[in-house]
Order: sequence, then C-alpha cells, then structure tokens
Amino acid sequence: MSEVATPGLLDRAIRRITTVWREMAAGVEDESIAAQMRACLAARGGEVSARNRAAKLAETYQRLDDGGRREFLRTLASFDSDPDAVAAAYAEVQAAEDPAERATAKAALRRALEPPRLRLLTQFTSIPDGRKFLVDLRAFLLRNRKDDKLLAALEADLRGLLAAWFDIGFLEMQRIDWNSPAVLLERLVEYEAVHAIRSWRDLKNRLDSDRRCYAFLHPRMPGEPLIFVEVALVKGLAGSVQSLLDEKAPLLDPREADTAIFYSISNCQRGLAGISFGNFLIKRVVEELSAEFRNLRTFATLSPVPGFRSWLDTKLSESESRVLSDDESASLMSAMPAQSGVEALAAIVAKRGWWREAGLRKTAEPVLLRLCARYLLIETNGRRARDPVAHFHLSNGARIERLNMLGDTSEKGAKESATLMVNYLYDPQKIEDWHEDYAGEGKRNASTTVRRLARGWA
Amino acid sequence: MSEVATPGLLDRAIRRITTVWREMAAGVEDESIAAQMRACLAARGGEVSARNRAAKLAETYQRLDDGGRREFLRTLASFDSDPDAVAAAYAEVQAAEDPAERATAKAALRRALEPPRLRLLTQFTSIPDGRKFLVDLRAFLLRNRKDDKLLAALEADLRGLLAAWFDIGFLEMQRIDWNSPAVLLERLVEYEAVHAIRSWRDLKNRLDSDRRCYAFLHPRMPGEPLIFVEVALVKGLAGSVQSLLDEKAPLLDPREADTAIFYSISNCQRGLAGISFGNFLIKRVVEELSAEFRNLRTFATLSPVPGFRSWLDTKLSESESRVLSDDESASLMSAMPAQSGVEALAAIVAKRGWWREAGLRKTAEPVLLRLCARYLLIETNGRRARDPVAHFHLSNGARIERLNMLGDTSEKGAKESATLMVNYLYDPQKIEDWHEDYAGEGKRNASTTVRRLARGWA
Amino acid sequence: MSEVATPGLLDRAIRRITTVWREMAAGVEDESIAAQMRACLAARGGEVSARNRAAKLAETYQRLDDGGRREFLRTLASFDSDPDAVAAAYAEVQAAEDPAERATAKAALRRALEPPRLRLLTQFTSIPDGRKFLVDLRAFLLRNRKDDKLLAALEADLRGLLAAWFDIGFLEMQRIDWNSPAVLLERLVEYEAVHAIRSWRDLKNRLDSDRRCYAFLHPRMPGEPLIFVEVALVKGLAGSVQSLLDEKAPLLDPREADTAIFYSISNCQRGLAGISFGNFLIKRVVEELSAEFRNLRTFATLSPVPGFRSWLDTKLSESESRVLSDDESASLMSAMPAQSGVEALAAIVAKRGWWREAGLRKTAEPVLLRLCARYLLIETNGRRARDPVAHFHLSNGARIERLNMLGDTSEKGAKESATLMVNYLYDPQKIEDWHEDYAGEGKRNASTTVRRLARGWA
Amino acid sequence: MSEVATPGLLDRAIRRITTVWREMAAGVEDESIAAQMRACLAARGGEVSARNRAAKLAETYQRLDDGGRREFLRTLASFDSDPDAVAAAYAEVQAAEDPAERATAKAALRRALEPPRLRLLTQFTSIPDGRKFLVDLRAFLLRNRKDDKLLAALEADLRGLLAAWFDIGFLEMQRIDWNSPAVLLERLVEYEAVHAIRSWRDLKNRLDSDRRCYAFLHPRMPGEPLIFVEVALVKGLAGSVQSLLDEKAPLLDPREADTAIFYSISNCQRGLAGISFGNFLIKRVVEELSAEFRNLRTFATLSPVPGFRSWLDTKLSESESRVLSDDESASLMSAMPAQSGVEALAAIVAKRGWWREAGLRKTAEPVLLRLCARYLLIETNGRRARDPVAHFHLSNGARIERLNMLGDTSEKGAKESATLMVNYLYDPQKIEDWHEDYAGEGKRNASTTVRRLARGWA
Repeated sequence: MSEVATPGLLDRAIRRITTVWREMAAGVEDESIAAQMRACLAARGGEVSARNRAAKLAETYQRLDDGGRREFLRTLASFDSDPDAVAAAYAEVQAAEDPAERATAKAALRRALEPPRLRLLTQFTSIPDGRKFLVDLRAFLLRNRKDDKLLAALEADLRGLLAAWFDIGFLEMQRIDWNSPAVLLERLVEYEAVHAIRSWRDLKNRLDSDRRCYAFLHPRMPGEPLIFVEVALVKGLAGSVQSLLDEKAPLLDPREADTAIFYSISNCQRGLAGISFGNFLIKRVVEELSAEFRNLRTFATLSPVPGFRSWLDTKLSESESRVLSDDESASLMSAMPAQSGVEALAAIVAKRGWWREAGLRKTAEPVLLRLCARYLLIETNGRRARDPVAHFHLSNGARIERLNMLGDTSEKGAKESATLMVNYLYDPQKIEDWHEDYAGEGKRNASTTVRRLARGWA
Repeated sequence: MSEVATPGLLDRAIRRITTVWREMAAGVEDESIAAQMRACLAARGGEVSARNRAAKLAETYQRLDDGGRREFLRTLASFDSDPDAVAAAYAEVQAAEDPAERATAKAALRRALEPPRLRLLTQFTSIPDGRKFLVDLRAFLLRNRKDDKLLAALEADLRGLLAAWFDIGFLEMQRIDWNSPAVLLERLVEYEAVHAIRSWRDLKNRLDSDRRCYAFLHPRMPGEPLIFVEVALVKGLAGSVQSLLDEKAPLLDPREADTAIFYSISNCQRGLAGISFGNFLIKRVVEELSAEFRNLRTFATLSPVPGFRSWLDTKLSESESRVLSDDESASLMSAMPAQSGVEALAAIVAKRGWWREAGLRKTAEPVLLRLCARYLLIETNGRRARDPVAHFHLSNGARIERLNMLGDTSEKGAKESATLMVNYLYDPQKIEDWHEDYAGEGKRNASTTVRRLARGWA
Repeated sequence: MSEVATPGLLDRAIRRITTVWREMAAGVEDESIAAQMRACLAARGGEVSARNRAAKLAETYQRLDDGGRREFLRTLASFDSDPDAVAAAYAEVQAAEDPAERATAKAALRRALEPPRLRLLTQFTSIPDGRKFLVDLRAFLLRNRKDDKLLAALEADLRGLLAAWFDIGFLEMQRIDWNSPAVLLERLVEYEAVHAIRSWRDLKNRLDSDRRCYAFLHPRMPGEPLIFVEVALVKGLAGSVQSLLDEKAPLLDPREADTAIFYSISNCQRGLAGISFGNFLIKRVVEELSAEFRNLRTFATLSPVPGFRSWLDTKLSESESRVLSDDESASLMSAMPAQSGVEALAAIVAKRGWWREAGLRKTAEPVLLRLCARYLLIETNGRRARDPVAHFHLSNGARIERLNMLGDTSEKGAKESATLMVNYLYDPQKIEDWHEDYAGEGKRNASTTVRRLARGWA
Repeated sequence: MSEVATPGLLDRAIRRITTVWREMAAGVEDESIAAQMRACLAARGGEVSARNRAAKLAETYQRLDDGGRREFLRTLASFDSDPDAVAAAYAEVQAAEDPAERATAKAALRRALEPPRLRLLTQFTSIPDGRKFLVDLRAFLLRNRKDDKLLAALEADLRGLLAAWFDIGFLEMQRIDWNSPAVLLERLVEYEAVHAIRSWRDLKNRLDSDRRCYAFLHPRMPGEPLIFVEVALVKGLAGSVQSLLDEKAPLLDPREADTAIFYSISNCQRGLAGISFGNFLIKRVVEELSAEFRNLRTFATLSPVPGFRSWLDTKLSESESRVLSDDESASLMSAMPAQSGVEALAAIVAKRGWWREAGLRKTAEPVLLRLCARYLLIETNGRRARDPVAHFHLSNGARIERLNMLGDTSEKGAKESATLMVNYLYDPQKIEDWHEDYAGEGKRNASTTVRRLARGWA
C-alpha cells in the first residue's frame, strides 16, 4: 500500500501505446527510442501516463547490451536545451536593471538551460526500483564517459539529481545486527570493501554484542545500504585487524569497553561516487555510541595505508641516500644480504611472510614505521596527503594517532601496506579545529609519537 | 537511531561559534544574519559544521516576527550568482563547436547560475523538521512575494527544490483509519478543506468500515500528510454529502458496495501550492480499491461547484435576456414576486433555506440545474473550464457525470454552489482519452444527461 | 497473515453443520445449545472443526439477551467432570505407596476432575476476538453469579483460565502518547476511572511532553489496554489534581523535574477483576522513568481517599465524644452554628463548596486532616487498612507520605474524600521492607508528619 | 519498553537475599535449592520479589550439569499438594447434595490438588526468556523421565502449562522469506528436520519467489519458530524432492502454478512434543495461498515414508509366500541372483544406488510400489496406520494420492523409504469427511491408483 509504483490500471493504455511503438520500432530501433523519449517529454495522456512510458523506456534500456545502452544514453543526452531560448533568456539577464529583475531573469535563464533529458531522468523514479536504476545508470556512465563528452554531460546532470535526492538530510541511519533482514546482510557481504566477509559465520561475528554496524539508507531505496561502517568495542586502541576478526576471540561486555574502533567503512553504490556520506556517518556513530555507552573514552579507526607499498617501492628503486640512514642500511644488509640497504629492504618486504622471521622483523620494523610515518605526514598529492585514506580522515577532522606494524597480515595487507595499519583518532572536542587545520592550511595533525617517527632520520 | 538530526557532539563547537556571532551581532542584527549566511556558505569547519550553522540560522528565523522574516529572506535572496562567472560561462557556450562541447559548456553555465541561496536552503534540511520548515517558509514567501521581486525569485528557487524533493516518486501512500496515530488524525481535522470535520466523532464516522481515507506522506516528513482523500463505499452514485456525513446512517458491508465516491480531497501544505499530487492520489486509490473490492464498478467524486454562485450572481445582475427563457422567467416570478425572472431567481437563491419551501424549490431547481450544466460545460477561463474543481477533474481525465440539487445544503454549500454538487466519473478505461480530449482540444466530456441539460434553452 | 482466526476454508463444513443444528434447534433452543456444546467436546471432524463450532457457539451467545445468556451459561456450567472417574482416580491416590506414585495418581485425579466446560471455554479463544469475548463473559458472570452456584463455579473456572493467560509474564508494557493509535486513546477516555477525561483536548494535555502514560496490553488482545497509569513529571510533591489537569498550565521541561506523580491508575477490564496488574505496572514505570530521567528523585502517587467521607459520616452520626476534641468542637460550632461539634462538621462538609468560605475552611481543615490521617492509619477492615486505595498502595510497599486538603475539589472529590488527596511514596530502596511490614505484621508506614497527625487528639 | 523482565530496581533486594541464601547454601547445596523454592512460594516481599527469586532460581538451574539438574527437578517435583487438604476437599465433594454444590466442591478439590511446583513453574515466565526456558526444561524432562516417576509427574504438569500457553489461539502465523531477520532464518537451518538445509544459498533457494515458507510463533517467544512448513508452487504434482531442491532449476512465475506442494514440515521445539500445531498450520497455509493465488487448484504434500524399509526388511526376513507373487519372485531372481525372491529383493534394496542400474530398477520398481501401497493402506499400529507420517496426514483429513519411486534418492531417502515419496492430497472440500472416515472408522482414503496398487497380488 505504501508503494507509489507503476499504476496497474494504466497498464492497458501503456500496453496499447507500446504496441504501437513496437510496430514503429521494427527495423528502426533507435529511431523508436528517440520517439519514445519525445513521447515521455510531451506528456501526452497526462503526467501519470508519461511516467508509465518512462518506466517502459527503462525496461527497454535494461534489456540492451552495453553497446545498445551507450547508444540509448547518447540519444537521451542529445535532448538538450533550446539554444535560441537560452540566448533570449541571456539577453534578458543583460537587460535587467536592478538585482531583483536580474534575479528573475537569471531564474528564467536557468529554466531555459534545463535540458529535457533531466526531466526524463526524473521520470524514471516512478518505476518500482527507480532510484536504484538511476544509481546504476550513473555507474554505467562513469565507466563509459571517458572520451565521450555527451555521456559525460549526461553523467554530470545525473550526478546533480542524485546529489539532491541523496542529500544527507534524507538519509536514515540504521543499526544492522543479526536481527536485520537477510536481504540486507547479504548486501554487507557483497559490498564490504576493506576486509572481505568470508562467510555468514564471519558476518555473525562482526554483528556480535561487542560489535556495532551502522548504515545509511535512503527511505525510497530500502534494502540497499549506501555506506556502512563496522565498529568494535574494545579496551585500549586496537592495532590488529586479525584479532578483531578472530571468530574465536572471547566476547567483551560492551559496558567495559573504553574504545570504539571503526575498522571498516564501505561505500556500497558505485553510482554515488563523489557524493560523500562517510564523514557524516562516522560523526553520527560517534554520537550514537557516546549516548549508549558512557564508558567510551576514545573513538578511533583502524585503517589501511593502501598507497604505502607502491610509494615505498618507487622510493626504493630511485636512490638509497635519500631514504635510509647509514645505520639502517647496515642493519638491513646484515639481515638480508644485498648490494645496498634499499635493495635489502625491497627484498625483505617482497618476501612472503617475512615478518614471521624474527631477524627480518626486528630489523625492518623500525625502518618501515619511520618511512610510513613520513609517507603519511609529509608526502603530498597536490595539497593533499598522498595516501587517500589519510586524506579522507584528515579532511574529516581526525588526527594520525598510532602506526601498527603487523596490523594486517593478510595477503592484501602485506602487498599494499607492508602489514601496517593506522589508528586515526576522532576527538569530538577537536574535530572542528583539526578539520580546519587541514582544510585551511594543509596542516596534518598527528600524535607526538607519530610526529617524532616522521622526523626520524632524513 | 534513524534520525539524521543535528549531531549533538558538534554542538559545543557550534555554541562557541554562535557565541562569537552573537557578540558580533549586538546592534547590527542583519549584518550578523548576512554574516551567518556567509559562514554557512563558506563551510568553515567542514560540511557537518556548516549544516549546524544553518540549523542555528533557521532557529533565528523562527524567532523573528513577520517584518524580521521578510528582511531575513531578502538578505537570503541577495546571495545570487556571480555575474562575471555567468558572463564567462555564457561566452564558453557560444564558443562551443559541437553538441557535446555545447552540452558541457551549458552544464558549466547552469552551475555558474546556481545562486548560493539555493545551497543555503538545502542546508536547512539538516534541522530536525527541516523539510517542514522549508515548506512553511515557502508558504510565507507566497503570501509576501507580491510587489517584491527578490522574494519572488527566492520563492521560485524554493519551489524548484520542493518540486524535486516532493516528486511523486518519493511519496508513500498510507491508508488512514481509526488505528492511525492521533497526531495524524488531528492533522486531518485541521486540514480538511472541503467539508469541515466537526468533532472526533465525525472523524471516526469518516473512517468507519464503509469508508476509506488515503494520504500521501513524505518519508522524511512523518506525521504530516501532503494531501488526503476521503472515500465512501456505497450503492449507486451518491448525490448528497449530508447523507454521507450522517453519523447515524447504517453501515454498509463494503463487499456489497458497487460505487466508490471520492467526497473530499484536501491539500494540506500551503507551501506546496502548485506541486500537484491529487491526480496521482486519485488514480492510486482507484487502483487500490479495485484490488481490494472486486465488486466496485464505478469510481466517481461528489464535488462542490465553488464558482457557480458568484458566476450566477454576475450573470443575473447583467441582463435577463441571455440567461433565462421566457417560461422560466414567468415561472420564477410567479413563485417569487419580482420585477423580472432574473431578479426572482436572485431573490430565491439569496433566501436562507429557500429549498425547504416546496414551491420555490420546484421552480428554481430545473433552472439552476440547467445553468450549472452550462457553467460547467461552456463557461471558460482562458482555455480552461471556468470552475476550478471542474478544471481539476477534467484535466485528470474524468467526465461530468451528474448534477445533484441539494447535494450540499450547508451554509457554505448554499453560498458557493446554490446547494449543487457534481459527480465526476473516473473510468479507468477512458481516463487517458478523456484527459487528452481536454488537455489537447479543450473538449469537456460529460454524460448525455448533463450535455442535454447544458444545451437546454439559451 | 498473523491472525490465527476462523479458517475460512472450513466455513463450508461449519455452515453445513450449523444448518443441521439450526433445523434441530427449531423449538428446542437450549436442547440445541447443549447439543452444540457436546459436539464441540466430541471434536468430530477434527480439532480445527471443533474450534469452528465453538466460534459459532460464541456467536449464538452474543445474540442472546441477558436471560438467554444466563441459561446458556448454566448449560455450559453443567458440563462437569464424571463422578465415577473422579472416585476411581481418588481411590488410586489413596492406594499409592510412595511420593512418586502418589504424584502420578494425583495428576490423574486432577485430569479426571477437569470439567469439560473448561475445554469448551478454551476453544472460544479461536474466534477472532476470543480473549476479549472470555473477559467480557467473566464480567457477565461476576454480575450474575450471586445466588447461583453453577454460574459461580463457572466463573471460578474462567478466572483460573484468565489468570493463566493474563499472567504478568505475557503482558507488554506500552507507552501511550499522542502518536498512539486513536483506537487505543479512545479506550483511555472510556476506561479512565479516577479523573474522567472530558475531551480529546484534555486527553492530549495528559499526553504532553511533561506527562507519561503507560499501559499493559496482552499481545493477543491488541488495542485493549488492561490497566493504565498516568504520570506527571513535576517539581516537588504535587498536591492538587486540579493543577495537574489544568490544560493551560505551562509545560515543564521533563529534564528539570525531580518528582514523578502517579495521578491516575485505571483497570480497564471488569472481567479481569481480582487478577492484579497495578503493583507490577507501578514498579515497571518507576524503573522505566528512572532510566529515562536521571533527574527524578521521588516517585509518589496523588490518590483519592474514596472511603473517607462515608466513614466520617458514620462516625459523625454515632457519637461526638470519640471523634473530636473539645477545642475542635468549640471551634467548629463557632464557625457553623449547630448543636454539637460533630453536627457542625457534618454540616460543613455537606455544604456545597464550603472550602471557598475562608472561615469554614480555616476551622475544618485541621480537623479533617487529623481525622483522615486516623482513618488511613488506624481504621481497619479485617487486617487491612479500611481505605481500599490505601490498602492497595501499602500492599505494594508504599508509605503514606502527605495529606493534601483541597487536593480534589471536583464534585466527586468533595463527595467521597472531602477534597482530600494523599501522596503515597514509592521508595525503590524500601519497597520490599515496607511491603513486608504491612503484609506480615499489618504495620502501615507513614511519614512523621502523617503519623503525628493521626496521633493528634483522641 | 515492552519487556516485563526482572525489574532492576529490585535487584538490590534480591542480591541481599541471595547473598544470604548463598551463605546458607555453603555445603548444603540442595538444601538451599529447596529453601529458595520455599521462599518463592512464600512470596515474601511481595509477588514482584517472588518472581525475581524465581528468576535467580532459573539461573541456578542453568549453571548445573545434567546430574545437578535432575536433582534440582526432583526437589522441585517434591513440592506436591497437601494430602490432608486433598482428603478434606474430597470429603466435601462426597457430601455435596446437588450439582451446583458439587461443582463448587470439585473446584475446591482441584485447587487443593494443585501442586505448589506448578506455581513455581509459572513464576519462571518472568525471566527474560522464560517461556523458552520452560520449553527446554520440558525437553530435558522428556529425556530423563523414564524410570523416574517424580520427574514424569513434573513433566506432566509442565506439559499442561505449555499446552495452555501455546494454545493455537495464541500463535501467530508468519511468512518467512529472504527479508526475514537472519536470527530467524538461522533457526530454520538448525531446525529443518526433513531435508537438511546445506547452506545459506540452499536456504535462499527455498525462499525464492516460487516458494513459500510459513511458521507459527508465539508472541512472547519471538525469534523462535514452533513449527514451519516449506511449500513449492509448481505445475502438476511434484514427485521428486531432488528437483524441488535443485538450486539451478528455473524460477516459475507463481501465478502460473496450479499446485502447492508442502515438501517439508518441521517441529522446532522438542519441549513442545505432543502439543500439536501441524494440522492447523497446513490448513492455515492452504487458506492463505488460496487467497493469494487463485490459480492454485491442488494442495498436496511430498512426504517421506520413514517406516517403509524397516517394515519391508522385517517382512522379507520372515517368509516369502505372503509378500511376493511367483511372477515377482521369478523376475527378481533373474535380475539379482539369490535363493529366493525375497532374498533378491532384500539384496537389491540393500545395494547402494541400485536404481541407477536399469535392470534392477525395472524389476524392483513395480514390486516396491505395490508393497509400499500395501504398507500405507493396510498395515496397522493399533488402530492407526503403521507409518507415522501417513497417520499424521490421514488424521488431518488428507488422502494418499500418489507414490513416487525415486522421489528421494538421498542416503536417508534410500535407507528409510527405498527412495519412495508420497503425495498426500488436501482437498479443502473433503478434509472434514476424510478426517472423520479415518478418526471414526479407521478408513484410509486413497486415490484409485493407489488403492489398486495396494490390492495388487496377495
């Protein structure tokens, strides 16, 4: 009763119309698609019928292959605003004599500029899964817009629509636990981007009484999380994701925890890329947990350093002198025979499971920690921190709190982060200032320990 | 847990900031409001903080009196787009060499034209009742935009935002009955626009087992219906609203009804004026009822003719010859002594409870029915039917089915419609064609009886 | 989908059967009822059919007038256990040689004693509102069992069933507020036993943000509260119900309240008389409010003294010497001319609105307070406090905290309690001990002030 | 808010009391348990406290090992009714002079017989999972009552309580699908008794759009199904469970199905053994599906024949002459060399995967079908059908419709049923009559084909 779906009583009319289209369409398929689009825009038979035609159009799209879809979308994109109307409206703007007149004229110009394709996209919301359809359509456009300015323009329009519809003010935060619908939990398994969920048993462990999981959902796209975060309630700052994911670890009474660790944040919808929710979600969860557990003192992440190894490999292949101290080089070469310190270090981190050899670990650990601190605190990408995860949390107003060697010894962890993980600290009292430090002056806040590490040698 | 409300943990920061504002604001209040708006737009301290500042700004607005609010809104309206950026973007459009380039340039022009005030309005969604706030704000603008182009421009922007947010694809249809929350029922009492609800007992009668009530709600504005419709399940076309609202009338088993009468449709939010839901709601309800009761054969309204009396009065004050036949005039004058037929008719309908006098009623009834049929079918307002209710239903694809003398003998009914009510018929099979007849050629469909009535004499 | 109601697919069979019954029943109505009951017990056609027959039987009952219902119930009551089977089972009990054998034999005896009418009553649960039907049926029995041992026996059986079904462990506590379904709120208006709800406006006031209302409901009798309590969150002990019910009184921010006043407790189902919920409800609400508002320090009632006036009138009509001191008598006689102090007091409290005359009030107030304290603390009904409300709260573990003159100046308040109201204090720390004091030794706890009052003169 | 759980505010008192118990209990553990039980029964400190003590007692029980639990329960069982009171009450029954007096006296006798242990069991409902606790407690008693009449008596008491609480009138039927909470789906995996669910993927397949799953739940035992049934919507009578469980089978549009196949019915709570729900559930589901899909014509099960192989093996080991015809024997011996037909048949069905050898299958199939029909239609266990599943469905009013060779070729299917499965037909028009045929005269209805098979030779 609460669905505003394709009104069935109008189906007959639509069927009649689409039969006609189909006959027309024989042999002239994309002619027909353009015609269908024109019919939607003409709104013949009333707005309700127009929406039903849009629904049919969406079905047509979904039956096409990738090539067909690109053609469909190029046709759609070509429904642009009328240049003469735009020119006339612009003339009115220039002729305006005071701010109020100008405001009116500019509003008229904006209306004149509004491309008909935008109206068509909006009509797609009337199909049962209309919003999901448009989100996935944008995902397709993002993959195909390169070298195709028409598709790029359409993508930009759609992004604007989606940004308005998925404005944070419309989203609902839901707690997800073992009582949640299976259909929703299945999505978590599918969408978890940071530490893959291996089984329903693994999932159940992540939803246990000393864990929390929260997601943002849109009320008109039920069962489809937009983003979710997994939190562990622990004593002290957790440094190892292995122990967090250990299904056999004993349960902690959450009323005894003093720290909430955000150990995984996953965006679920590729079609919403660039529309940001993570910042809001983290802060809402901090608030929610603060209210539920007065015992929590510390809110921090346990995050990967996804760009560390590739940066390190580049550095090591360049030149020794700038990266390692003589002592470090000597020590590394004695642990792993090589021509130079950098070669030794490169050989160590390339070796499968190197950290299980006490000698290698003892030698490499201090060097890697120092280099990682430097990578996080000093290396840049334009004005940003080079590491994308670091950039995300620093932008949100967190600081770099602690580096954890062997924080993630999975294959992925070794390959991308040399097993290192980072705790970013969210201090509710300081979020504003730290955000401003980074957003304004590019200053990256970090704990004294991490700052000292980064200074190290060099 | 499911609210995305003002995050409390940031309140401290906001309080600090607003303290500063307040100090700055001493004596220079609207300076301060403009400054606050600039701060929101600057998004200092991050997007979350900016939204919290917007929430504070909304609170400021709500504490102002009407004069203060107008000033506030004029200040807000003055945050318009940058003329130089617009000019530059327009130059790019003109320089574009192919459709794709042009599409890109036009998108850039649209972005340049987007006034900062729009972004500010969007930020208001983050306050707990943000959407309701904006709807009410538009209601205020609608009352105050006349002679104030700045406010008119702001109203137009807001209308665009609201039209997008309250797109039919986002709404939920809810059935309302005696199990619904009191807070929602209270709204019905408050918003019922056609036949005022006199008491909770009257309301309960309207929600009984042979009645239905449906509303559209927005998921992010719970407890606030946008529009609702009241339906009676009856045998045969109902012609009198008194009998429908009679609390003592016996209950009909709805499985024995053959007709659904839509006897009241009320828009609830003045701030959503011009954003149309009624058309969709009626069709959705027809569908819903068809599925629930296979016994229903006829879907029709019982509607007022709100403009009939004022049209009639004008006609009667103009000239006799064009309105009444000689027989009618004679008959009217014999029932009500007067100088002329028109004067007699004017005197009759002006007389309180004239219909309770058999002689007056017998004489006036055929004349009023004929004139009303003519008013509905022939009188125009531009290309539209002159009667706004007739225009609404004809646009939706209904036809004029039957006129009912004494359909509404309430004071309002006598004063506006001379007690007449109209049944508009919604035939699911014909809705499309009838809509097209009216929207395309201006043709008003009606039953044979009504058409004959309208031809009558004249 | 969640109803386990009369399965429609078996209706046909039932209809066939009931047609037969009806034919048989012509002229021999209660013969037929007995026959129907036998058929239910025989369970011919399976258990599902038997329950459907029980449903039909219930319908038959509901169509009878009071006389018919009594006959129906006497017939039902006559389905008693088989005396021979009981005798045989008792012989087995006596022959048992050890505790285990005896336990088995006694269980068999209990089964033999179980009257078939009990099974029939249970079958009534399968009608859609079966539980409400049985509750109302017991209400009828309670009104009719006097002088009718058969009905009394049936009532006792039904009480046993209801006590099991409405065991506190099955009930749900629900908060009731302005968001609750109208159907539930309507019940409050209907059932409020202490301070009648005058209008929906009055009701809304009682559900405002500085109020709380909680009810127990049974999950299988939705929309039918069993008992509800109304609470006001205030500063300091409230002594006047008028000010609590004043719709124009300003709202208090509940976070600033230090006291929760239980000002009305109403049992809703006469048919559940003697099955106690109030004790549990008060304690659950104390717990709920303690968790929600840490600022609450005091939990107390504002209760009537419903037996005070009738006790007082009796006392005053008996003899002066034992009730009033000489000073009191003199003072009363000077305020209200009469033969004696007791006559003067009787005349005062019988006078409409006597408390609005300063002289009368000043004289009568100390006397009435003293007598009321004595009535509450000393007068007995067997081992119980004579006042039923005092007995209820003392049994629950409350103490008598304060007497309030002019606490209820409504007509009812003047007539029953001479305007006095009492605060009973629930101190979570002492509930157990105070309960034990009263339940064990008959000791009634009270504040020092009240104890002093009661000692007074006499 | 809706839990009537251990009121925390009384915890302090309970803690004080239990500390005392614990001190008393040192060394004399079951003394202490008896004492605790006495305290619960004495209801010192009020009913609320008594229930809290019962909750503590339940916790004590749950920490005990099996031996300790048996002792605990024997102690509990020993709280029997007072023999003298019983004797006195019985004397009153004998002295009664009319039915009404006798009814009263018998009611008093029943009260006297009510063992205190029953009251204690009832008090356990106040712990958060009280009902589940008692259900599991009965499951324990069922495993331990043999040779222990005390525990058997306690089990009988508990069965009576549970039968009243889990009366069909209190249960809710829920549809279970992929939107159901994971915690509930996990239970299905755990409880499925007929065809084990191998994975979440298997489960999801069983909840697909051409499947239905329904369960009965008790409102006070949420998340714990009592019984559930799995249904496939198919075309024509399904004969093979393999194809129903095939995850790769194409989906059928349920609106095209004409048959609903109940292919698995599982009781979930061992502690509710003997309290029957299956009969009601099947009929409710038939009704539900009839309403949802008007296209369904046939409702039937696909059921195992769990006793067939063991009956057959016994038969085959007894004597040839009565089981096989000469032709059958000859044919079997030619397919499987053996001393006799029965030996040959025994050897065939004992052979792993015998049905995959065309020769064996061709020979054995007609013989097995005939014998199975005879087993189902003729073999008895007292007055019942020998096969328990046949007895269940015949009691419910179904008939034996079709036998399916190779209906279940799983290891279990081969071992118990020689791969045979049976369709039992539920014809809503005939359920009553067929139930009566079987319940009354022991007549087993079957289709003509099955009846012919059973007559076969012999």
